Amino acid sequence: MRDGFFSIFTAANIDEMRIPVFNDISDAHIRISPFVHRTPVLTSLQLNKIFGADLYFKCENFQKVGAFKFRGATNAVLNLGSVAREKGVIAHSSGNHAAALAHAAVSRGVKAYIVMPDNAPLVKKKAVEGYGAEITFCKPTLKDREETTEAIIALTGATLIHAYDNFDVICGQGSAALELLREVPELDMVIAPVGGGGLVSGTSTAAKGVKKSIMVIGAEPVNANDAWKSFTTGQLVPSVNPVTVADGLLTSLSELTFTIIKNHVDQILTATEESIIECMLLVWERMKIIIEPSSATVLAVVKENQDLFKGKKAGLIISGGNVDFRKLPF
Amino acid sequence: MRDGFFSIFTAANIDEMRIPVFNDISDAHIRISPFVHRTPVLTSLQLNKIFGADLYFKCENFQKVGAFKFRGATNAVLNLGSVAREKGVIAHSSGNHAAALAHAAVSRGVKAYIVMPDNAPLVKKKAVEGYGAEITFCKPTLKDREETTEAIIALTGATLIHAYDNFDVICGQGSAALELLREVPELDMVIAPVGGGGLVSGTSTAAKGVKKSIMVIGAEPVNANDAWKSFTTGQLVPSVNPVTVADGLLTSLSELTFTIIKNHVDQILTATEESIIECMLLVWERMKIIIEPSSATVLAVVKENQDLFKGKKAGLIISGGNVDFRKLPF
Repeated sequence: MRDGFFSIFTAANIDEMRIPVFNDISDAHIRISPFVHRTPVLTSLQLNKIFGADLYFKCENFQKVGAFKFRGATNAVLNLGSVAREKGVIAHSSGNHAAALAHAAVSRGVKAYIVMPDNAPLVKKKAVEGYGAEITFCKPTLKDREETTEAIIALTGATLIHAYDNFDVICGQGSAALELLREVPELDMVIAPVGGGGLVSGTSTAAKGVKKSIMVIGAEPVNANDAWKSFTTGQLVPSVNPVTVADGLLTSLSELTFTIIKNHVDQILTATEESIIECMLLVWERMKIIIEPSSATVLAVVKENQDLFKGKKAGLIISGGNVDFRKLPF
Repeated sequence: MRDGFFSIFTAANIDEMRIPVFNDISDAHIRISPFVHRTPVLTSLQLNKIFGADLYFKCENFQKVGAFKFRGATNAVLNLGSVAREKGVIAHSSGNHAAALAHAAVSRGVKAYIVMPDNAPLVKKKAVEGYGAEITFCKPTLKDREETTEAIIALTGATLIHAYDNFDVICGQGSAALELLREVPELDMVIAPVGGGGLVSGTSTAAKGVKKSIMVIGAEPVNANDAWKSFTTGQLVPSVNPVTVADGLLTSLSELTFTIIKNHVDQILTATEESIIECMLLVWERMKIIIEPSSATVLAVVKENQDLFKGKKAGLIISGGNVDFRKLPF
């Protein structure tokens, strides 16, 4: 099965990047299971009726730190060698990955350094601080973030754990789809949101490993459609200052995640801001669960492509539930 | 056990009102189980840490129509005689009871008449209509509501199903606590919100029936504290035009629910508007579930009385999750 997956890869690619295969996801799942929640798969007869499909929501909004990111971060921390464990981990992020890495590391006795722009929302600073990370603030530019990060690495020897451009992180993220497919093996398709592509990379590797015939779809805001552009043109095209309510999906694919997507993802579908907000509200109202706009993007592509999903059993990876309730988009 | 429960009742009271005993709740539970959701009991380590108690949330926000009211309405509909079934049921309500009765009746092939003030929110009109009820609008005064209701009863012979001043409704509402106690028998106490008192009546009858030593607490907004006043003074004192964010708790106790509360409820505790809103947000943020302000009142009394709950195992009846997201109180 491993060979089959990556037949279009050249040796050169494989030399440069380590690409996860199904067994890597399966190993990660076993490794992290004692430390992560096995989140529930929820269904809603009302939503099934509205969309004419059987929808299975894999609810990573109920994951620790409120997002799937805790899976990848936990796998990365558990895979550190003994020397690296001593020196700690570092990330520059103001979002769910920062909180996830902080909690994953500190709860396993590993020091976590988080570099954050000084204009990050107070609530995010407090969350990361609450998990016990050491925060360093920097100016809100990529250059300053990277320089600050480099300086801390030079000083401490901490291991950089990228939010998605990282083998271990991708393997951890794939464990959510693995659980979903084992619980609902009859799925025809699985949909995951696409930001940097870590989640959809893990999801697609896991899903195709469990069930070769499954269709894997990436869901992206049309306002941050770098993955759609890259997938359609075959060339990695980063987003430039995208603006979308789905604030977890602003990042662009990396060479690694784009390669995996080209291998395993069947389609990238996009959704408008209006659909994303409407679908977020729909889930809040009908299912009584909090999902963040990035998660609503998966339902929004179902809404905008109902012919594709009609009568099908579709698994939706609900990526998280971290919402700033003082800044709601409706 | 039945005798013990009602030893302080005079024969006169019993003649006038039929008071539910534990077996009535247990029978109702068996009767309605095929038609209602067995809702989950959720816990949150974060909230346990904040409040220093082990909290078990019985999540009726996941019940059909988004509220516990579906239990009582279903029991009332299933208990109709064959003639009454033919003639249908009626309620005057603009809230969860209207939706619950509409859905419970129509889904069992029984006609539902709902009398609603013409200024009721459009979303509520649409919900009740969507469940297939026949709506009659009236002026938003008690007099007009009652006259309109009487006129429809005279015309149709429909059976009035009161939202809480009704034996069958109370028995149905008690089934949530029954499920909770069977799932978590080690509870030290159970807390239910108090509006008209139907839920706390059923809850307390069920809880004391399962476990005599359990403490039963009613939770009420301080801004609509008729139950607290009545309980404290021993005299039924209705609220006069109460104003609270917990819009499911505006109604006042009836003779029936007050009698049951005096028998089985150990304490009524009140909470401020600020606490209710804070606790609603806390549940949204930490548990990622939507609860309505009325439900948050139970957590708010824990927050305001932490000494009472410290180290205890407390069951919280989360009454519903129907929130108007365009009119949030924060």
